[in-house]
Amino acid sequence: MRLLSGTSSGGVIEQPFTVDEVPGVLWTPKDARGTRPLILMGHGGGEHKRAPGILARARRFAAEGGFAVAAIDVPHHGERPTGEEFDRLAAEYRARAAVGEDTAALDTALYRLVVGRTVADWRAVLTALQRLDHVGAGPVGYWGVSLGCALGMPFTAAEPRVRAAVLGLQGSPVLAGTAARITVPVRFLVQWDDELMPREQSLALFDALGSADKTLHANPGKHGDLPWFEPEDSLRFFTRHLG
Amino acid sequence: MRLLSGTSSGGVIEQPFTVDEVPGVLWTPKDARGTRPLILMGHGGGEHKRAPGILARARRFAAEGGFAVAAIDVPHHGERPTGEEFDRLAAEYRARAAVGEDTAALDTALYRLVVGRTVADWRAVLTALQRLDHVGAGPVGYWGVSLGCALGMPFTAAEPRVRAAVLGLQGSPVLAGTAARITVPVRFLVQWDDELMPREQSLALFDALGSADKTLHANPGKHGDLPWFEPEDSLRFFTRHLG
Repeated sequence: MRLLSGTSSGGVIEQPFTVDEVPGVLWTPKDARGTRPLILMGHGGGEHKRAPGILARARRFAAEGGFAVAAIDVPHHGERPTGEEFDRLAAEYRARAAVGEDTAALDTALYRLVVGRTVADWRAVLTALQRLDHVGAGPVGYWGVSLGCALGMPFTAAEPRVRAAVLGLQGSPVLAGTAARITVPVRFLVQWDDELMPREQSLALFDALGSADKTLHANPGKHGDLPWFEPEDSLRFFTRHLG
Repeated sequence: MRLLSGTSSGGVIEQPFTVDEVPGVLWTPKDARGTRPLILMGHGGGEHKRAPGILARARRFAAEGGFAVAAIDVPHHGERPTGEEFDRLAAEYRARAAVGEDTAALDTALYRLVVGRTVADWRAVLTALQRLDHVGAGPVGYWGVSLGCALGMPFTAAEPRVRAAVLGLQGSPVLAGTAARITVPVRFLVQWDDELMPREQSLALFDALGSADKTLHANPGKHGDLPWFEPEDSLRFFTRHLG
C-alpha cells in the first residue's frame, strides 16, 4: 500500500492511496489515533472516488461520526484504465437512458464486466486499510447506491468483516440471489419515481435481502434526487451498528 | 377545558384533561413555560390514550424533544362510552383477524362510525391546548398509525395548524382521496409482513399522499412489530419540521 500524507480541511484529513493498481482516498478525523469504525463507500456508474456526493458524505461521516471513510475507483472509472468493451456498453447505456429506453440488459452486462474484480479490490483495500494505525481492525460498514449497490451487494455477502450496509437505487433481478445471502443490518434507499430502476424491481430486491434487520426508505423523486436528510440518517444508522 | 395538575416523573409532567366530554392526557417537560411545538398522538384500534406505545413515545418526545404531547380517547375507546354497533363490528373484526380472514369491509365500517366525530374532537382539543401557557400556539404535528392513521389523515387534511405528520400501518383504499389532500411533510411507516394491511395497499396509500416531502419507512415484521428505532426517527422528523 502506498499512502500519501494528504491534506487537511474542516477537521478531516484526506489521504490518497493505492493498493496494487487500485487508486483510493482515505478520510479520517484530524489527529485520529487508534482503531475506529471504517465505512467503505462505493461510487455510482460514471462517477469516481471523489464524486461530489462521495466527498460530502465522507467528510461528514469523518467529522461528525469520527469514522474512517474510504472510496476507490472501480474498474474503468476515475483514474483507472478505460476498457474498450466497457466504454462501448456504457456509451450505449447512456444513449438508451437519455431517451427513456430499457437499460436492464446493458446494466447486467456492465455489472458482469466489473463485479468479480471489484469484490477482490475491496477485500485487498480493506485488508490494507485495517493495518493502518489510525484505522485499525474495527467494525466495517459499506455505503453504496446504484452501481455502488450492485457491486456492494456481492462484496457485503462475501466479506464477513462488513457488519452493516446502506444500499439501494437498484433493482436488478440479477442481484436477487446475492441479496438473499446478505444477513447484516441493511438500510435500503428507493427513489419512488426512479426513471432507471422500476419501482417493483427495487421493492423486490429489498424483499430478497436475507437480513432480519433491514429498513426501506423511499422518497419521491428521480434516480439522482436522493434527499439531503438520507445521508444524515445513514450516519446515525452506522453509529447505531458500528459505533 | 378541565385540566388537572397531574403527576411528574422522569422530568415529564402528565396532566389528565377533558374538553367537553373528550378525555385526554397532556405531557410537557417539567417546568415548561411558554410556547412549544405540540404533537397530537392518535392511538390504535382497541387502544386508548395511555396505551403503552403512546405513553413511551409521549414521555420520550417531551423529555428529549421538549415537545408538548397530547393524546385523547377516540369514540368508543378508553374512558368513552361504548356504542352498540361499534362494539358488535369490533368484535367481528377481532374474530376475523384472529383467523386471518379479510377485515377490509369491517375496517371501513368502523372508520365511518367514528371519523367525523374524531376530527371534530381533535380540532376542539387542539384549540383548548393552544390556550395553555405552557403549550401555546406553536407548530403542531400529528403521530398516528393503524386506526390512528385512518383518523389522523382526515384531521391532517382538514386542519391547517398541523404542519407535519407520522402516519402508516394503514392501506385502506377508502383513504386515498383524503391522502391526496394532505400536503404537509409525512413520514409513512409500513410493516413489510403486515397481516392486517396488504402490502400493495399500504404502498398505494403512500403513493396517494399529496405531500411533496414524504418518506416511506418499511421494516420486516407484522402489524404490531414496529421496531424501536422508528419512534426515535419520528422524534428527529418532528424536530426537523417543527423545532
